[in-house]
Amino acid sequence: MLYEKTIAAIKPLDAAAMQAAQARQNTLTKPPGSLGRLEEVSVQLAGISRRCPPPVPARKRVLLFAGDHGVVRQGVSAFPQEVTAQMVLNFVRGGAGVNVLARQAGARVTVVDAGVATTIEPAPVLVCGKIGLGTQDMSLGPAMSREQAVAALDLGVKVAQTELAAGLDLLICGEMGIGNTTPATAIVAVFTGRNPSEVTGPGTGIDAARIAHKVGVVQRALQVNRPDSADGLDVLTKVGGFEIGGMAGAMLAGAAAGVPVMVDGFIATAAALVAVSLAPAAAGYMIAGHRSAEPGHAAALQKLGLTPLLDLGLRLGEGTGAVLASYLVDAAARTIGEMATFGDAGVSNRA
Amino acid sequence: MLYEKTIAAIKPLDAAAMQAAQARQNTLTKPPGSLGRLEEVSVQLAGISRRCPPPVPARKRVLLFAGDHGVVRQGVSAFPQEVTAQMVLNFVRGGAGVNVLARQAGARVTVVDAGVATTIEPAPVLVCGKIGLGTQDMSLGPAMSREQAVAALDLGVKVAQTELAAGLDLLICGEMGIGNTTPATAIVAVFTGRNPSEVTGPGTGIDAARIAHKVGVVQRALQVNRPDSADGLDVLTKVGGFEIGGMAGAMLAGAAAGVPVMVDGFIATAAALVAVSLAPAAAGYMIAGHRSAEPGHAAALQKLGLTPLLDLGLRLGEGTGAVLASYLVDAAARTIGEMATFGDAGVSNRA
Repeated sequence: MLYEKTIAAIKPLDAAAMQAAQARQNTLTKPPGSLGRLEEVSVQLAGISRRCPPPVPARKRVLLFAGDHGVVRQGVSAFPQEVTAQMVLNFVRGGAGVNVLARQAGARVTVVDAGVATTIEPAPVLVCGKIGLGTQDMSLGPAMSREQAVAALDLGVKVAQTELAAGLDLLICGEMGIGNTTPATAIVAVFTGRNPSEVTGPGTGIDAARIAHKVGVVQRALQVNRPDSADGLDVLTKVGGFEIGGMAGAMLAGAAAGVPVMVDGFIATAAALVAVSLAPAAAGYMIAGHRSAEPGHAAALQKLGLTPLLDLGLRLGEGTGAVLASYLVDAAARTIGEMATFGDAGVSNRA
Repeated sequence: MLYEKTIAAIKPLDAAAMQAAQARQNTLTKPPGSLGRLEEVSVQLAGISRRCPPPVPARKRVLLFAGDHGVVRQGVSAFPQEVTAQMVLNFVRGGAGVNVLARQAGARVTVVDAGVATTIEPAPVLVCGKIGLGTQDMSLGPAMSREQAVAALDLGVKVAQTELAAGLDLLICGEMGIGNTTPATAIVAVFTGRNPSEVTGPGTGIDAARIAHKVGVVQRALQVNRPDSADGLDVLTKVGGFEIGGMAGAMLAGAAAGVPVMVDGFIATAAALVAVSLAPAAAGYMIAGHRSAEPGHAAALQKLGLTPLLDLGLRLGEGTGAVLASYLVDAAARTIGEMATFGDAGVSNRA
């Protein structure tokens, strides 16, 4: 079980590098604290990289995990299931939102079929890691077997390790899976202790009546399965998804390798909750890209102790918000690394 | 009076291009509205450029106006006045926050001495447009003469027109001027009708007692001068600054030339209030980069009808927040221009 070895390799952040970064921020030609969140991120990057100033994360990669969900049979999504596979082809051809934003960011995209319900033609940027042809309907029983949950985590670890071995400074996790706000909502409800009615939202755009129905589906999934919030693997098994497990594994691998892990929207954050449940130290390596329009996202981020960098009303997933926010992570590293100090610049500090 | 001719050239946004952009957004492979603020910005860019899809604003320029303020004698700033000139040298040498972020954004920086209190050595990226050796103390009388206010606006127009003639797709206005949150606060109080106590903040970092003192200084400036909120030139004259007038003029020139104008933090937003007071149609060309930590900023943005793209607790000025946010403006143009449509990609739309 690769993911367990990976968890064992995750170190706490380097406190000395973080202290040095904080001290350096106070010597730069600006009022102390005036770069706000960029200063906080620069300190985190120092802790992650164990260097001050931290390097600019030049080599970025989006790992985009796709999977289907048996629970779509309950009518929880605005789009038909076939869209998952169609969008995988769109990612492969470079036409989706995340492709455009990744080109802008200079990030490469690797698409991972973790469990799409149909067979997908091989392509150079597509990794076939199919664990099943979609999950089972979690409103009737477990979404997957415990062995499949382990396989999903291990898939994420493996794919991330391959990319890390090729040279990687920043890992961005995104996803595609029609219906996957429903398992994500169940996961968020379990780990935050919130009632599904508080954390269920429109996903790709269902109306109020369908949202009320979706709340009921999530409640049923929790009643039928009784996932154990103290056991991340149990939660993933019972109310998760193959792409959610893949993301969680990739996040663990990023943390173990000492690179920053950008968390995208609601579903990626559900994966982060699974990862942090398995390995609390992984949270230190995570940077939340944005606050999604999905109502449960804020509660999930709060549980992780993460403050998102962007709040643009995005609700597309795919890693889009995290890719956008990776620009701000670069900015954090560049400012601490390149700005002149008061001494260098001959600028008078405050009295 | 160059600025008056400039105002006459400002057209309303192109409604047809905006409608086309909105329609195009709904054909792209994503749930409608799921790119949130990026979609709104893409529609605005279409209206500004009069094209759908709007071009990606590749050639960006930061116009960084610097000036000093007589009111610093009232003890309103944490830093001594000499820092304005020292920071101008830091900008010229490329060591300041905005330089680092502009390099990252591929934006060039032009520094404009609109009225620094000391003589500054000429340098290639520095425009000498000195209107005075700092303003007068606005707590005792007008900050400048009406002729100087016109000269400040015209300076901004001229500098921007020079850059526009050389080829420019996006104009970013930033500033440096020790003490300039104080005139900015007075301007914001005048145009929003708020009490100075509601919109006065720590600027570069004064404590609560100094903030209370600063509130009194702003109140005195408003009582002594009685600026007319219906006359932007009067407000600029009585409680403005040379760099604030310069920014307002540059914003008018950007709007007249049909390019997006990125507004930075609290002081740049005060300049935007002056510009929009003179030319209401200019507001359509403005994109707010970020919400500053300065407490009056939200009220000022609300008055302009602008929603900021970032909220990172920045309070550095210099154009830093606007330069960072210009990445998101690019993203808005790229996504509407490059994403595949449902038809192109063979993706099923919602039922």
